[in-house]
Amino acid sequence: MKKDESNGFEIVKGGGVCAPLGFSASACAADIRGKGKKKLDLALLVSDTPCQTAALFTTNRVLAAPVRYNKGLFEKTKEFYGTIVNSDCANACTGAEGYKNSEKTASLAEKKLGFSDGSLLVASTGVIGAQLPIDKISANIPELCDGLDDSNGNLFAKAIMTTDTEVKEIAALVNTDNGSYVIGGACKGAGMIDPSMATLLCFITTDMALCAEELQNLLKEAAEESFNSITIDGDMSTNDTLIAFANGMSGVSLADGRHREQFYAAFKWVCKQLALMVVKDGEGATKLITIEITGAKSDTEAKKCALKIANSPLVKTMLSGCDPNWGRILASAGASGAEFDPDKVSVWFGDLLYVKNSLIIDLKLEEKAYEIMKQPKYAIKVDLGAGDSEYVCHTCDMTMDYVKINADYRS
Amino acid sequence: MKKDESNGFEIVKGGGVCAPLGFSASACAADIRGKGKKKLDLALLVSDTPCQTAALFTTNRVLAAPVRYNKGLFEKTKEFYGTIVNSDCANACTGAEGYKNSEKTASLAEKKLGFSDGSLLVASTGVIGAQLPIDKISANIPELCDGLDDSNGNLFAKAIMTTDTEVKEIAALVNTDNGSYVIGGACKGAGMIDPSMATLLCFITTDMALCAEELQNLLKEAAEESFNSITIDGDMSTNDTLIAFANGMSGVSLADGRHREQFYAAFKWVCKQLALMVVKDGEGATKLITIEITGAKSDTEAKKCALKIANSPLVKTMLSGCDPNWGRILASAGASGAEFDPDKVSVWFGDLLYVKNSLIIDLKLEEKAYEIMKQPKYAIKVDLGAGDSEYVCHTCDMTMDYVKINADYRS
Repeated sequence: MKKDESNGFEIVKGGGVCAPLGFSASACAADIRGKGKKKLDLALLVSDTPCQTAALFTTNRVLAAPVRYNKGLFEKTKEFYGTIVNSDCANACTGAEGYKNSEKTASLAEKKLGFSDGSLLVASTGVIGAQLPIDKISANIPELCDGLDDSNGNLFAKAIMTTDTEVKEIAALVNTDNGSYVIGGACKGAGMIDPSMATLLCFITTDMALCAEELQNLLKEAAEESFNSITIDGDMSTNDTLIAFANGMSGVSLADGRHREQFYAAFKWVCKQLALMVVKDGEGATKLITIEITGAKSDTEAKKCALKIANSPLVKTMLSGCDPNWGRILASAGASGAEFDPDKVSVWFGDLLYVKNSLIIDLKLEEKAYEIMKQPKYAIKVDLGAGDSEYVCHTCDMTMDYVKINADYRS
Repeated sequence: MKKDESNGFEIVKGGGVCAPLGFSASACAADIRGKGKKKLDLALLVSDTPCQTAALFTTNRVLAAPVRYNKGLFEKTKEFYGTIVNSDCANACTGAEGYKNSEKTASLAEKKLGFSDGSLLVASTGVIGAQLPIDKISANIPELCDGLDDSNGNLFAKAIMTTDTEVKEIAALVNTDNGSYVIGGACKGAGMIDPSMATLLCFITTDMALCAEELQNLLKEAAEESFNSITIDGDMSTNDTLIAFANGMSGVSLADGRHREQFYAAFKWVCKQLALMVVKDGEGATKLITIEITGAKSDTEAKKCALKIANSPLVKTMLSGCDPNWGRILASAGASGAEFDPDKVSVWFGDLLYVKNSLIIDLKLEEKAYEIMKQPKYAIKVDLGAGDSEYVCHTCDMTMDYVKINADYRS
């Protein structure tokens, strides 16, 4: 384990959703895409004991079947054992048949595991508009359930990937006077990341004891600072789902108020790290860029200005070309609807103050800015000079590979 | 001349801003970019007699110097002789010096042509953040003014281009009992086309006689149906300018109410054709796609749904790949904020009904849809099944060339 001094907790090496006590996972290749490939595409995550559960879903009007199914369950209970997830088919825009398939997927696993109906949540990701091959799922569920093991967190994280190029998982361990607890997580996502939704698919697990209501509030707060402050292409999915499971098996409880601050910080940290992994692995992306707005008139204006810049195709292509074409940043800020004096804007690339009072400081700085922009990770700071409000979000560059991936996605 | 039967007026072959009586133009290579290239980059358009003039400008908060300069002039008068335009430098984010350069550009040409101060409007397009090389402009103005000729409409249209690959000009001739009149136009634009602004640079000329107030109202109406219903990348420029000049030299006057309907139609047609040329020549674009929303609850909802689809990077890349991945269309509609029943949506590719009640009609139609999507021009129709409102806009596909052009723009 590696000590993260700044946060006062330890990162669990190789840890993910199975790092907290009592969680086990499994994955298999069910050939959901129907191309005969041996790619992991069906995954199961289960707790030994029922979990207090919280969830956030996409705000898209068109909801995938698994999202509709989960929402129905959440109206009745907040206690679940886990979730079954498939990649390579979103089960969205699939009508009544799609809904039945989500229901059946859960039901088959519940029966095999001896759970009562409605004990498992479901999630799907992949192409929209195709029906789930329910026979293949059905055929693979026995193997999937038999394979449950607390060393399979990494397989779970792999099986939920679509156009992701890297596995996204993390876990943090916190030591307290009453013993230690762990928060783990895994997620997938590469395109369609927009802050007006929960996220793509993300699963957080913890053995801390807390009630579903508090977990829901914390999840919302954490999402605001993590998954809701990243953007890749400004598109919004039909399937985005963020679920947190707390099984209390560590014996440490939030009922003891002394643990609250540290738990909240660690929980948010886990979400933030996963969100940054998502941007970093944006489709075709080569850079992780932080957009920092300061000096805005209000929080709302800071946010809309940051996101307008972060989503601008002209800014994002400029980032890929390492071109300090700061005019595009000002043009985006000006188009965002935020109020500011157009002659009072400052822009930094990294620590380099490049534009002051909306004018370039020195043309000779271009080479320095270029050097900063060649880095895989840096910040662009924009001060609007109009107030005290700030907002930070994260984006990536737009490359030819983004287009290639999305023009060819289904082939 | 070619008769356009459907509209009842004739298209002037090779016609542009100099097609109406009394307009002449000129262009020269002033090396504004400073690369020593002999590219036309400075252009002049002048009428023999003063024009009733109307204009629309970008709504970006960051306004380029020429836009600020023109706005100032329009507060005092609506009568101008013409405009001087440069490409390869936007003169935006250039502070007080930039404003002075716009003023000086106009003033130098006015003096040379014997006009009083404030007779000419200015426009610039190109890279933001660089100062205009005013000495080069100054050195070229004598040649520019001496070169004025009514056969130079095409040179004017060429000189205002930046990343455009095709010259954009058109003219329509209308015969009436009182004689004939002409409406001509030229424009430039390739990226940064978003409907919440006037347009990129566009200049309309006519020898019809009408007052500036009516011309302004007509221009606004025409822009709504043309430049404001096209989108390329959803970005908004600091420089967008649409100006219409009417010198009345045809002797036909709108004071005679019988001409109104035909004039309005022809004027809007000219704007529409120019706008479509802009989308068709979108940076890296290979296709001109019409997005037609029907069955929306209100006009506002129809519009926001159409534009969300038209601007979605996932939809636009799918268009370039000719992939009937209709789920992305539904996901965009669902993310637009428009209200509709997610189970009641229909989608057509061209005339092919592909999705009904939010379900694909027959998987076998995929090949047919692919054939339609291979065409350079077709429509995607989406019926939301929620009301009677409609909206039509035009977009283009997003290709790897879009990224290439914009990552490399300044190199």
